[in-house]
Amino acid sequence: MPTTPATKPRVIIVGSGFGGLFAAQALDGTDVDITLIGRTTHHLFQPLLYQVATGILSPGEIAPSTREVLARQHNVEVILGDVTHIDVEHRTVLANTLEVEHRYAYDYLIVAAGAGQSYFGHDEFAQHAPGMKSIDDALELRGRIYGAFELAEVAGAQGDQEDLERLTTFVVVGAGPTGVEMAGQLVDLSARTLKGDFRHIDPTAARVILLDAGDAVLTSFDPHLQRKTKEQLEELGVDVRLGAMVVDVNAQGLEYLDGDKQRHRIEAVTKVWAAGVSASPLGADLAEQVGLEVDRTGRVPVQADLTLPGHPEIFVVGDMIALDDLPGVAQVAIQTSRFAAEQIEREIEGKTREPAFDYFDKGNMATISRFRGIAEIGPVKVTGFPAWFMWLVVHLFYLVGFKSRVSTLLHWTITFLGRDRAERVITEQQVFARLAMQESGEQILDRAAGEVAPRSGASPEQTQG
Amino acid sequence: MPTTPATKPRVIIVGSGFGGLFAAQALDGTDVDITLIGRTTHHLFQPLLYQVATGILSPGEIAPSTREVLARQHNVEVILGDVTHIDVEHRTVLANTLEVEHRYAYDYLIVAAGAGQSYFGHDEFAQHAPGMKSIDDALELRGRIYGAFELAEVAGAQGDQEDLERLTTFVVVGAGPTGVEMAGQLVDLSARTLKGDFRHIDPTAARVILLDAGDAVLTSFDPHLQRKTKEQLEELGVDVRLGAMVVDVNAQGLEYLDGDKQRHRIEAVTKVWAAGVSASPLGADLAEQVGLEVDRTGRVPVQADLTLPGHPEIFVVGDMIALDDLPGVAQVAIQTSRFAAEQIEREIEGKTREPAFDYFDKGNMATISRFRGIAEIGPVKVTGFPAWFMWLVVHLFYLVGFKSRVSTLLHWTITFLGRDRAERVITEQQVFARLAMQESGEQILDRAAGEVAPRSGASPEQTQG
Repeated sequence: MPTTPATKPRVIIVGSGFGGLFAAQALDGTDVDITLIGRTTHHLFQPLLYQVATGILSPGEIAPSTREVLARQHNVEVILGDVTHIDVEHRTVLANTLEVEHRYAYDYLIVAAGAGQSYFGHDEFAQHAPGMKSIDDALELRGRIYGAFELAEVAGAQGDQEDLERLTTFVVVGAGPTGVEMAGQLVDLSARTLKGDFRHIDPTAARVILLDAGDAVLTSFDPHLQRKTKEQLEELGVDVRLGAMVVDVNAQGLEYLDGDKQRHRIEAVTKVWAAGVSASPLGADLAEQVGLEVDRTGRVPVQADLTLPGHPEIFVVGDMIALDDLPGVAQVAIQTSRFAAEQIEREIEGKTREPAFDYFDKGNMATISRFRGIAEIGPVKVTGFPAWFMWLVVHLFYLVGFKSRVSTLLHWTITFLGRDRAERVITEQQVFARLAMQESGEQILDRAAGEVAPRSGASPEQTQG
Repeated sequence: MPTTPATKPRVIIVGSGFGGLFAAQALDGTDVDITLIGRTTHHLFQPLLYQVATGILSPGEIAPSTREVLARQHNVEVILGDVTHIDVEHRTVLANTLEVEHRYAYDYLIVAAGAGQSYFGHDEFAQHAPGMKSIDDALELRGRIYGAFELAEVAGAQGDQEDLERLTTFVVVGAGPTGVEMAGQLVDLSARTLKGDFRHIDPTAARVILLDAGDAVLTSFDPHLQRKTKEQLEELGVDVRLGAMVVDVNAQGLEYLDGDKQRHRIEAVTKVWAAGVSASPLGADLAEQVGLEVDRTGRVPVQADLTLPGHPEIFVVGDMIALDDLPGVAQVAIQTSRFAAEQIEREIEGKTREPAFDYFDKGNMATISRFRGIAEIGPVKVTGFPAWFMWLVVHLFYLVGFKSRVSTLLHWTITFLGRDRAERVITEQQVFARLAMQESGEQILDRAAGEVAPRSGASPEQTQG
């Protein structure tokens, strides 16, 4: 008879994204004690974040409570905490919960802390051009986007064409999947959802500009699909500008250098930053302790089995690793975390570990707008409606696992068939009014100030102050 | 042939709540130019706000865009602005949009600016005990409620019973309909939704305390229903304390005087303020200009036809008026605003105005928890499931007007039949972590700090700092 060990092996998982959640689930039934430490209380289904930012879905529909998802898995506990340091030598993790640091000891560690937005050394751009990485980002952008149209209505009532244009010009920086989806959604929002909602402006005349420093959109896809996507975006009315390197962003607009190093300025109150990611700083923290160097985007050059040299107990997965040119996509996070979990399970069961992670490329897809998408599965390339439909099925299928499926499906159906969006709330917490507008807003509206003419020409009186 | 006037009469409506929205809709088809000025971009269906605060519904489901609701009514424009002053003599309204003031001229004015939370001169309570008046309030409370359980899990892991109790004690101040609903929902949340989600605490052991300075709950209802409600709340496990006057609120708890002026302290991190309202300060602004005085809660003693003396062009409606003991409920706002709109229409059509507003009491209802409610329609009193079902039908019927019905119905069905809640997201913008906890949190967690023991007894190492 085997003897029961005094304590079970302790597995700590850092992060509640795809990597963290799938690692925990892969260890269901394994004789370990798992502590999943997450910085948020929810698991974020990031591929649909742009739908929250544009008012289609509510946060709850794409961000189920991590605790709830794992409630029935009895070998895991979920702790709210921001992991600030991993002590490789002492095998402990330091996590911050409400400014108080706690230390957690592990026997095995799976680091799945993901990646954040990168402004390439220009973090000051962030306040003017929010990223697209968290629910907070998405709600902030939602407030700014719908808020810009509200202010445009005021500018429109003044007949101030310059302000109106600045308020109804939307710039998306970065033409990866998120940037492409945002650009497509912004066109759909202005051309379809808001049509008829305003009296002084024509939302269908809003401009959407998509900038990328590279020479193609969706560079991770096949060149044929890249061209198709660019064509489809331009058909929709998106102004796609490639070879455009953003060099300055402020409240009223941004500036970029084109391929010939010519400087251009775009006047636009609402900017979205979807360019560049940078791996969690925990990557550098780990690398330093084991004598490695992270790459330009902070990723750790893990060994073929996803561990660190000399530390078979530490696995790094997902967006945090630099291995075989693996892309920063959900599938990589899922497969690497499952691989890590399997090795832990094998070792506990006395089996030999597998020497190397092997990525199975299930294909790649992106959606451009309602009914338009692209997909590549091995040699097969799909575009247009079939690709969009595949995208829908795959994403719905995923969400099914998290119980939000019925109402989410309904929101989608309503949105795709009708013109309405269910989630248009701007909260006062969202600082669109204060932050995005602070500089530009006062200048814009100072000039415009004073009078908002009722439509039928009745003349308003002078403003105070 | 009648001659067309050069400009149409200009009607300004202040507020996008029940009063403002129904006034605008009642003027559909009337030959006027309406400007609805709202401080938010949404119409808030306030009776369901507590469902957002407790994670059942998303903001979009109870707060449709005002602009979208009125999109097809061509004689109305919607302007985002906070009305700060009404100039009765010059017939203009001053509204603030992003720190810039604009003046709008009117021929008729309907003031439907509603009421805010009142802390009875203790505004410093607000940061520790948010009110229940806006979407922001509800999201803030949602973050604090779910956040308290997250922190309790950390305290539970420490075995710190005192902190755990403080974090799982919820106090609702004010036993009107909102307070009763919140208390019922908090019990349901802890006893049903969160059951099984935690490892170190038992959420079903959470305490919910309902305080009111009066000697009954739901004082606007029949005494029999008051007693029934109190009984049902106590059956659910709510600790109802009447004659309890709150005298101090801080981050860690609150203090109250009982009927015998004895001071009591409750240790509770999460407090909800549902006691007392105070009418919009625009009421006092108006009253002063026409030689009236507002009452204790800031309400304007309007004339029988809802106008101000000497100013037949100014109507004040809804929660802002002191007339015939009318309660501050949606039906009063709806009926008074419709009456005001009708009088404007009659005058424009050359008919005589009606001399006095007459309230038609359709009855009163409240919900206590899932499947329990109370209702009174004239002499008929209903309790329990039938009352709850009536409440559900009435509220659904109302929401039908705003297109959120299908997904809302689904969320409700899922929530009432199952144990899950779809909207549990805590955003970083929500300051539960910083504000509610700032003082108490550090103290609580400082003591608790250091170690969070993995469940199976493996001992963690000492904390840094």
